[in-house]
Amino acid sequence: MTLPDRPSVLTPGQARALFRTGADTPTTSGWCRGHAQANLLAVPRDLAFDALLFAHRNPAACPVLEVTDPGDPHPREMAPAADLRTDLPAYRIYEHGVPVAEVGDATAYWRDDLVAFLIGCSFSFEAALAAAGVPIRHVEQGRNVAMFLTDRPCVPAGRLAGPLVVSMRPVPEALVETAIEVSGRFPTHHGPPVHVGDPAALGIADLGRPDFGDPVAAEPGDVPVFWACGVTPQAALMTGAPEFAITHAPGRMFITDRAD
Amino acid sequence: MTLPDRPSVLTPGQARALFRTGADTPTTSGWCRGHAQANLLAVPRDLAFDALLFAHRNPAACPVLEVTDPGDPHPREMAPAADLRTDLPAYRIYEHGVPVAEVGDATAYWRDDLVAFLIGCSFSFEAALAAAGVPIRHVEQGRNVAMFLTDRPCVPAGRLAGPLVVSMRPVPEALVETAIEVSGRFPTHHGPPVHVGDPAALGIADLGRPDFGDPVAAEPGDVPVFWACGVTPQAALMTGAPEFAITHAPGRMFITDRAD
Repeated sequence: MTLPDRPSVLTPGQARALFRTGADTPTTSGWCRGHAQANLLAVPRDLAFDALLFAHRNPAACPVLEVTDPGDPHPREMAPAADLRTDLPAYRIYEHGVPVAEVGDATAYWRDDLVAFLIGCSFSFEAALAAAGVPIRHVEQGRNVAMFLTDRPCVPAGRLAGPLVVSMRPVPEALVETAIEVSGRFPTHHGPPVHVGDPAALGIADLGRPDFGDPVAAEPGDVPVFWACGVTPQAALMTGAPEFAITHAPGRMFITDRAD
Repeated sequence: MTLPDRPSVLTPGQARALFRTGADTPTTSGWCRGHAQANLLAVPRDLAFDALLFAHRNPAACPVLEVTDPGDPHPREMAPAADLRTDLPAYRIYEHGVPVAEVGDATAYWRDDLVAFLIGCSFSFEAALAAAGVPIRHVEQGRNVAMFLTDRPCVPAGRLAGPLVVSMRPVPEALVETAIEVSGRFPTHHGPPVHVGDPAALGIADLGRPDFGDPVAAEPGDVPVFWACGVTPQAALMTGAPEFAITHAPGRMFITDRAD
């Protein structure tokens, strides 16, 4: 499967159809410009309250866009024609807190009792950042965004507990205020940064070794800027170790029909 | 038990202590000026996901301030020293959608699996309305606020479904814009009105016959103004008829330690 030359101009339906037929991509960052992207967390019904409460208690990391009814793979609000089992480029399957598989099609793992949560994604504000003149280094470098576990604990909820995960973008120092202002207009996609500058303040030892995604090189004069990240629920799965969950593979998101 | 002459100047702790020892009042509107008040919905753990999802899908009616852990009667964020079983003036006990009892102390009905939801209340912005010159007619008249079932359906969630409930305040026409602006600053307490003017537009036949609370007389030149109301979950209990729930009695709220 050849990837499109210009994924930014695909419609969400075209992109999802590509992924449904088996296409993969290192990241959906930059795809379907102008459309919101979402993190996926699908958990059994008996974990759904913990998951929704975890999101409610950690709204910067987990802004909930939609919750499906148990077993329903179709997100009726964000993309009614889509199928959450097949329309993402890649999935992670978690069992007892361990990612046991990464697959391109989650149909074989789907269960009738799964409740899916779509959670806002910072890719959704990258087009607005770019339009404001902020370079998106990982897109320039053809890489996935860099994501890190921090030393900031989330507020736990039932069986879900774990650290905040952040995405990092190197931003030219003179454009940091712009990046704060523009991303702040996207409260359902994590909003403004949680931290600017020294990664040690978040307990991050080495920006060259992300916990998820790819290392992204800074240009001279860039400052690291950190946003709350929708991979945070995956860290909570790893810590809380509930029986079963399906998530997106970090950086390879669900592309919705909604305008960003 | 004699009620205080000036409940507006009590601290929340003083008011809750009064209610704990058995005091009742027709309404907590006007009590403990400057402090947020909350609706209570406590449901068994197996209904908690439906309740939280119902709140998430109907945020104007159900802005969630806090969710307790199962069985825990103490709201750790909003008033850690309080006890939700005893510190409200009155409770309603719902069984299979029917309010089977109204009691001043819910201890005998409490269960180890109950999850309590505290939901914002429009009483929390009444002090700000009054400070802006908007008369609060039901306080002037010594009555509970008037609340009505509407013909607007909420978005259902699992076993919870039902109509939007609104509170109504008669507001002098020249002050309606002020009331909209002031209440709009309180998004966690229902925010701006959902409707101004003709009650028939909400399917309300007779303002003199509220479904909850007391009838409140309009003065000449007043316009009825309607806000989403935290009694909405009680309407969803009546329609959805889940096994069991404890709520506050309409208009007799939980008074939190938080500033409004």
